[in-house]
Amino acid sequence: MSNHHVFSDEEKRGVYRAIRERRDIRAQFINTPVPDQVLRRLLEAAHHAPSVGFMQPWNFLVVKDPVIKQKVHGAFEQAHARSAAMFSPEKREQYKKFKLEGILEAPVNLLITCDRTRTGPVVIGRTVQPEMDLYSTVCAVQNLWLAARAEGLGVGWVSIVEEQDLQKIFSLPKQVRVIAYLCVGYVSHFPDRPELEQAGWLPRMDLDELIFYEQWGRKEQGE
Amino acid sequence: MSNHHVFSDEEKRGVYRAIRERRDIRAQFINTPVPDQVLRRLLEAAHHAPSVGFMQPWNFLVVKDPVIKQKVHGAFEQAHARSAAMFSPEKREQYKKFKLEGILEAPVNLLITCDRTRTGPVVIGRTVQPEMDLYSTVCAVQNLWLAARAEGLGVGWVSIVEEQDLQKIFSLPKQVRVIAYLCVGYVSHFPDRPELEQAGWLPRMDLDELIFYEQWGRKEQGE
Repeated sequence: MSNHHVFSDEEKRGVYRAIRERRDIRAQFINTPVPDQVLRRLLEAAHHAPSVGFMQPWNFLVVKDPVIKQKVHGAFEQAHARSAAMFSPEKREQYKKFKLEGILEAPVNLLITCDRTRTGPVVIGRTVQPEMDLYSTVCAVQNLWLAARAEGLGVGWVSIVEEQDLQKIFSLPKQVRVIAYLCVGYVSHFPDRPELEQAGWLPRMDLDELIFYEQWGRKEQGE
Repeated sequence: MSNHHVFSDEEKRGVYRAIRERRDIRAQFINTPVPDQVLRRLLEAAHHAPSVGFMQPWNFLVVKDPVIKQKVHGAFEQAHARSAAMFSPEKREQYKKFKLEGILEAPVNLLITCDRTRTGPVVIGRTVQPEMDLYSTVCAVQNLWLAARAEGLGVGWVSIVEEQDLQKIFSLPKQVRVIAYLCVGYVSHFPDRPELEQAGWLPRMDLDELIFYEQWGRKEQGE
């Protein structure tokens, strides 16, 4: 087997640890500042994501101003109240108890966007799947999230906020889509398991149930 | 600074190496088989992606049958021909020279999908941003891609193929969206830089141009 490109055991362990121990952090932020050079490494990690046609459609807005954070938090609260009403009465009470963001507590918030016109109208690899630039930007988010875990930093993705509210708060141009609003900071601890799993909201699925071979629904491997 | 959650230097280096040295592989696949336990680790990595409301909306279709691969390759060729016609005449000649997929050469192909109905109609965190389940699945792709790099395996994302062709080839149910069709295998080498950068198609952008503070377009940090 050609394995001369494999990482050392400890480097490999780093990659798998980041993947396994990454958490969506909402309640564990502490107010230790994030050094500029650490934040820079996270943004470099994001910038090295794969991008369709090497389009690099992302921008990174660094948010530390408490006034701006308050505005985002207000937009979250409105969306959260509307969301609660969508759950069945039994689920609603549990839903309302979850802490779902750390906007004000996290020392750094990051808005990650996708400029759909970055390199012109025709992009290699986006000719038949126009959403590929959005997906590239999501890959940038995941790179940043894993690098943050390696640095001992927590990240929480706030998705209970209307895109149009963020567009207004940050004066985004029309061609720029919001991909992720992230809360970033050091943490008191990383929970062992995802909080929704721990709370019994939903279980971790069995991977074997999610794998098929050659065709949708086929559970047996050929050969 | 609270840094007791930081990884060891070598583990951290592993994470950053995976991020920096990951490439979209098209032309470098070799036909060394991918051991089942290695493929399993990649799928475990994908399965540990963040998912909105702990929805885990993904499925993984493992494709090794040459007949199926041929069908996908045919769908690629049609989409590729249509795509070429979209480029300006000057760009078109260069476009046609790029090798943009390794469907037949890669020993393993993977179709990664998103079941939009996985846990019912109301999902925590997807109440106001309905695309969040798609984005969760993209995070799974990026996890797998980075784990593959650590294992010395190359991955190429084939996006020049119509979703409806893949839905037909793999008999996907209506509520299941295609997120990524990936080619996976050992490689002769990992290129130093992205191939479109190397070929002069587009340059790597300067990260500083992509960072703003507090507002879109603001280049100066406050405080």
